[in-house]
Amino acid sequence: MRLITIDDVRDAATRIRGSVVRTPLVPAPWGDTERPLWIKPENLQPVGAFKVRGAFNALGRLTADERGRGVVAYSSGNHAQAVAYAAAAMSVQSTIVMPEETPNVKVAATRGHGAEVVLCGAGERERVADEVLARTGGVLIPPFDHPDVIAGQGTAGLEIAEDLPDVANVLVPVSGGGLASGVGTAVKALCPNARVFGVEPELAADTAQSLREGRRVDWPIADRNRTIADGLRSQPSQLTFAHLQRVLDDLFTVTEDQIRSAVRELALRSHLVAEPSGAVALAAYRSAALPPGPTVLLVSGGNIEPALLADLLSA
Amino acid sequence: MRLITIDDVRDAATRIRGSVVRTPLVPAPWGDTERPLWIKPENLQPVGAFKVRGAFNALGRLTADERGRGVVAYSSGNHAQAVAYAAAAMSVQSTIVMPEETPNVKVAATRGHGAEVVLCGAGERERVADEVLARTGGVLIPPFDHPDVIAGQGTAGLEIAEDLPDVANVLVPVSGGGLASGVGTAVKALCPNARVFGVEPELAADTAQSLREGRRVDWPIADRNRTIADGLRSQPSQLTFAHLQRVLDDLFTVTEDQIRSAVRELALRSHLVAEPSGAVALAAYRSAALPPGPTVLLVSGGNIEPALLADLLSA
Repeated sequence: MRLITIDDVRDAATRIRGSVVRTPLVPAPWGDTERPLWIKPENLQPVGAFKVRGAFNALGRLTADERGRGVVAYSSGNHAQAVAYAAAAMSVQSTIVMPEETPNVKVAATRGHGAEVVLCGAGERERVADEVLARTGGVLIPPFDHPDVIAGQGTAGLEIAEDLPDVANVLVPVSGGGLASGVGTAVKALCPNARVFGVEPELAADTAQSLREGRRVDWPIADRNRTIADGLRSQPSQLTFAHLQRVLDDLFTVTEDQIRSAVRELALRSHLVAEPSGAVALAAYRSAALPPGPTVLLVSGGNIEPALLADLLSA
Repeated sequence: MRLITIDDVRDAATRIRGSVVRTPLVPAPWGDTERPLWIKPENLQPVGAFKVRGAFNALGRLTADERGRGVVAYSSGNHAQAVAYAAAAMSVQSTIVMPEETPNVKVAATRGHGAEVVLCGAGERERVADEVLARTGGVLIPPFDHPDVIAGQGTAGLEIAEDLPDVANVLVPVSGGGLASGVGTAVKALCPNARVFGVEPELAADTAQSLREGRRVDWPIADRNRTIADGLRSQPSQLTFAHLQRVLDDLFTVTEDQIRSAVRELALRSHLVAEPSGAVALAAYRSAALPPGPTVLLVSGGNIEPALLADLLSA
């Protein structure tokens, strides 16, 4: 199995330049004095999440012929929006397979980006996606299990290394592991003294256990679904797990209360709206035994229900 | 009266580089198709507002001797925080005069930046500030009525022109007018075809009336205090009014309901927490007769009470 390299990430950065936001490192003077703090606000990307990086890179790597046949993704979350958005920007037809129970607002948003949405029953999305692929001859863009997607997400790490070369700690949410794989690859290559930490909810800590045991451990989806961090309920593939084993120094887990507090703190102190999945790195910064030194938290996304955000602010 | 020039803004940009965030233009694909939209998120600055630009420039222009005597500001708002923050970063002693009724959280935050806070009775802040100046020999840093402050705020406009040279419309909140004066000067110099529009609450529309009448009109503070946009209750000085007459193409006014909706829309669609004063440019984008073309909204600050933000999200 070939793991991606810093050269893949550099290529991706060239490919997606101008299509995604070059997010700044936002200083957070309210961090603790031993660990000066910066935020990488990926919630400011179009569609509100880092996912556009991988989507633009994967689509940009397609041949003209492949682009002509269109792309397919299955997702009810940020990946769906990102593929639809990137495809529209590149004048590529996209079909997104979403579960029937997906909130209307997300279906409408995906259609708003110009995608064709195909609704499917629970547990049927892979079968339905296969049907669409067979019918259209299109290309599947997976949410994390692909080197081009991983390299695209890694461009966020490249930017961290460029902007803060003496970074000591980088904290990144882990779900399917594409973001942490890419960011870790870039940061480790350019800042060999930096540590890269993954962060998971305690209630979906499959990767923490997997890394401890040195093999992928499967947690039932019913267990993973308990966390409020609805973007962190996936599990690494063989490919992303191999990256995580290589690039992560450790993985911290955080409680639901810590996640809720972190959403509130980001809104009030950094003026950033984060979804619960996007706020777990701050939760770990507040609770984990982190080495001293300049620290970057990656805030991965900002798509939160208004009522939930209001509730957390009132807490 | 000498008005600032683009050279003053360029000097300021060199002076404050590394001390403030080089905020990106965040694309807002949810804007209307005739007026593609970008946000300049100045709420991501340290202390949560553009005010650090002017504060760093004004302090940076002081002689070593002046710095040794310290700086003084009177404000209960973002300017107080900005001067305290910039002074601490430059190892300059700062004294901030604040009204006794200032919320404790703001007094504590200002002290947290290392400032000495002197509380004073209503309407006494100028007299008390004069006493502090006489006692310490320090230098007063005014919130807007100073060329160095105006040039510092103008660096936000310089960045807009660098990042989007074909910008057609720039919308900026107006209170004392320092921000609009500086941004307008930079944008007009570098993008001569761009229009620069000020935005005010209807309930504090003194500058709209003043520009129509060609002279500064005074609105009673009791009237201006009615708006929820508590950062937009000041009035231009002779110096800033002269700039505004030169650089503004027009000034739009917005209602309280439009301001509230704009705070909500920025949180949910751009994932940015804006204070009401910071959101008026989006309110104008949604309601005013704006010419077509690429449009930039400057979101000036993000310091909002959690309960108010929760309330607006639940609306």
